[in-house]
Amino acid sequence: MGLIVQKYGGTSVGSVERIENVARRVMDYRKRGHDVVVVVSAMSGETDRLMRLAKEIDPRPNERELDVLLATGEQVTIALLAIMLNKLGCPARSYTGAQVQILTDDVHNKARILNINEQRVRKDLQDGRVVVVAGFQGVDEKGDITTLGRGGSDTTGVALAAALKADECQIYTDVDGVYSTDPRVVPNARRLERITFEEMLEMASLGSKVLQIRSVEFAGKYNVPLRVLSSFGEGSGTLITYEDKAMEQALISGIAFNRDEAKLTIVGVPDQPGVAYRILGPIGEANVEVDMIVQNVGADGTTDFTFTVHRNDFDKAMGIMKTVAKELRARDTKGDNKIVKISLVGVGMRSHAGIASSMFKALADHGINIQMISTSEIKISVVVDEKYLELGVRALHDAFGLEQKPESVR
Amino acid sequence: MGLIVQKYGGTSVGSVERIENVARRVMDYRKRGHDVVVVVSAMSGETDRLMRLAKEIDPRPNERELDVLLATGEQVTIALLAIMLNKLGCPARSYTGAQVQILTDDVHNKARILNINEQRVRKDLQDGRVVVVAGFQGVDEKGDITTLGRGGSDTTGVALAAALKADECQIYTDVDGVYSTDPRVVPNARRLERITFEEMLEMASLGSKVLQIRSVEFAGKYNVPLRVLSSFGEGSGTLITYEDKAMEQALISGIAFNRDEAKLTIVGVPDQPGVAYRILGPIGEANVEVDMIVQNVGADGTTDFTFTVHRNDFDKAMGIMKTVAKELRARDTKGDNKIVKISLVGVGMRSHAGIASSMFKALADHGINIQMISTSEIKISVVVDEKYLELGVRALHDAFGLEQKPESVR
Repeated sequence: MGLIVQKYGGTSVGSVERIENVARRVMDYRKRGHDVVVVVSAMSGETDRLMRLAKEIDPRPNERELDVLLATGEQVTIALLAIMLNKLGCPARSYTGAQVQILTDDVHNKARILNINEQRVRKDLQDGRVVVVAGFQGVDEKGDITTLGRGGSDTTGVALAAALKADECQIYTDVDGVYSTDPRVVPNARRLERITFEEMLEMASLGSKVLQIRSVEFAGKYNVPLRVLSSFGEGSGTLITYEDKAMEQALISGIAFNRDEAKLTIVGVPDQPGVAYRILGPIGEANVEVDMIVQNVGADGTTDFTFTVHRNDFDKAMGIMKTVAKELRARDTKGDNKIVKISLVGVGMRSHAGIASSMFKALADHGINIQMISTSEIKISVVVDEKYLELGVRALHDAFGLEQKPESVR
Repeated sequence: MGLIVQKYGGTSVGSVERIENVARRVMDYRKRGHDVVVVVSAMSGETDRLMRLAKEIDPRPNERELDVLLATGEQVTIALLAIMLNKLGCPARSYTGAQVQILTDDVHNKARILNINEQRVRKDLQDGRVVVVAGFQGVDEKGDITTLGRGGSDTTGVALAAALKADECQIYTDVDGVYSTDPRVVPNARRLERITFEEMLEMASLGSKVLQIRSVEFAGKYNVPLRVLSSFGEGSGTLITYEDKAMEQALISGIAFNRDEAKLTIVGVPDQPGVAYRILGPIGEANVEVDMIVQNVGADGTTDFTFTVHRNDFDKAMGIMKTVAKELRARDTKGDNKIVKISLVGVGMRSHAGIASSMFKALADHGINIQMISTSEIKISVVVDEKYLELGVRALHDAFGLEQKPESVR
């Protein structure tokens, strides 16, 4: 007898048949005595369809209005799932983000959840209902509709689980767990039974696409046990929890990569205090997220400053860069949106030296040129030309033996 | 310098190109110094698409959830129109029914507007914005989404015009005004320049489909001048106002008809006080609207009781009828959903006798059997077999010379 929050992604609710499968799974958990709250995404393809409509009108649609548009995607799904549950004899009620209500800041298209008023949800659960909540969306203080950005439904699920103090937050998707890397790139990639929040954060932020980064942050912050599993098969998926001394632990858990990166460089900036801030300040104000940052001071007293952003933000960022470059009297600006990032992730890295050099060697052995390097406690990332993505990931997967179930290294 | 509420139906916003046309018309009115509030329906086909999805799951979908589903249709349109207006340099903001807020009762799928809080709208107008409001939808006291039923966007437009004390409520549609009858049935049907609220009420309630009946009631009650016009052409449409002695007035303004009728009869009910109430009470409780009612007492002391409902409600009504018939020890129940209603409408009828007999003669001359008759001060309706619809309407249009511009009859 527990409270379970289940989140189903777009492919899991992509048709009436699939919505029926979701309803039956929900009812199965109810039969076992659990209360269930369901968070759903828009049906697969729907968000893209809406986005195309908006972009047909304006390549940079008004952000407030874009949220009004996109929020309809999940609203359709909650209604259909609630109709299905009621039809199958399971009392259910749907809520939009505004109805719950999921209060966010007012940064349209990329809002952050500030607070959840879970009273209506709790009342419905007490009355024996399944509660179906629209993922990805919320409402700001003014009553305007906001969206959390792509993948935001995961965040909704975890935030609701935290607010309701749920026993587990289950994220159903079209894969049956978190893999050592993308099986489409490395066919013998292996499903991980457990992974720590920290590792998962690095995997997600680096583009593994299984879970959205903010949902993992939330889950870690509020210690919500998170399970990624398939909405089509049975299996127990991958459990994401805090590090556990007793748990089987690999040196390297996985290899993440991100195809959606773009690189910007300001060349020959006269070196002076505050250069980094003067470059990245306007970028941040434009709500462009910066990923990797590398700065080198050259022999001539000028600095080359390089950073990466999401490819969608490339044009916006380049525009800002050119203005900043003039102000800073930089020699030149360069951009490249044909790059990718590949990262090794593993908490085992903390206690083991030599991982980085093994990684660079494996890449060099395959003739792959490294353009940028960035490291943290549990990951090493490199930027390479996009044509090397598959080759690089496979080379590293082999080099670190990730296809095998790990022995305990501690 | 006035305040105009414009309502655009589904075909007027059926594509990005058409949405652009709407935006340009709105901006044109703004240039002439008017404040503009725009009410829009779902893009044509969208409500049907959503309804099909729901019915694929459940032929009688949960009514609360159906409203959550259908309300997304207009939400898409308001967002797209607001994106378009902003793109064209016209500041605009969209609001769902819940956001405005348009408070309704909680009769899902057929809610009635109780109150409109027009503060946010007024504030935006003062700030120089065009306000785009979702038609057809509202919110009840509990915060649940409601819809007003088909055609409800007209009601939203008129109710907003009344709440804002607008100078005119313009209903844009795919026809360029109100016609003496449906031009698809009678090719030489004539556009009326003016028509009274009363006549329009009869025309709308009888299925002329140009305007929804509740919107005309609202307009009449709050004396909001209502204009029906085409969103594709220029023309001045048809103005609907109170009766004006000076205005050109025909004997008969038009011929309305309704294809969506179904007839139910309880045969041989032992005559006793309260029969009508005992039959129609449960029908009303089931939120089925009854249209024509005819009761005859036969020679044997039993009553035949006949009434008509919308065809969509036929099965529901028949189910209730069978139960009631048993309780009343009636001899039999009969149903026919292959009937139509044809009505002559005109305020001139008040002062002129012999209209009814001319009508019945015209139908008889064409061999059309009349199944039911019902009359009011300004209309005469008959029910006939659906196969006679076109023939009957054309015969009456000819008989009363409606293709000609009327001479003043007073």
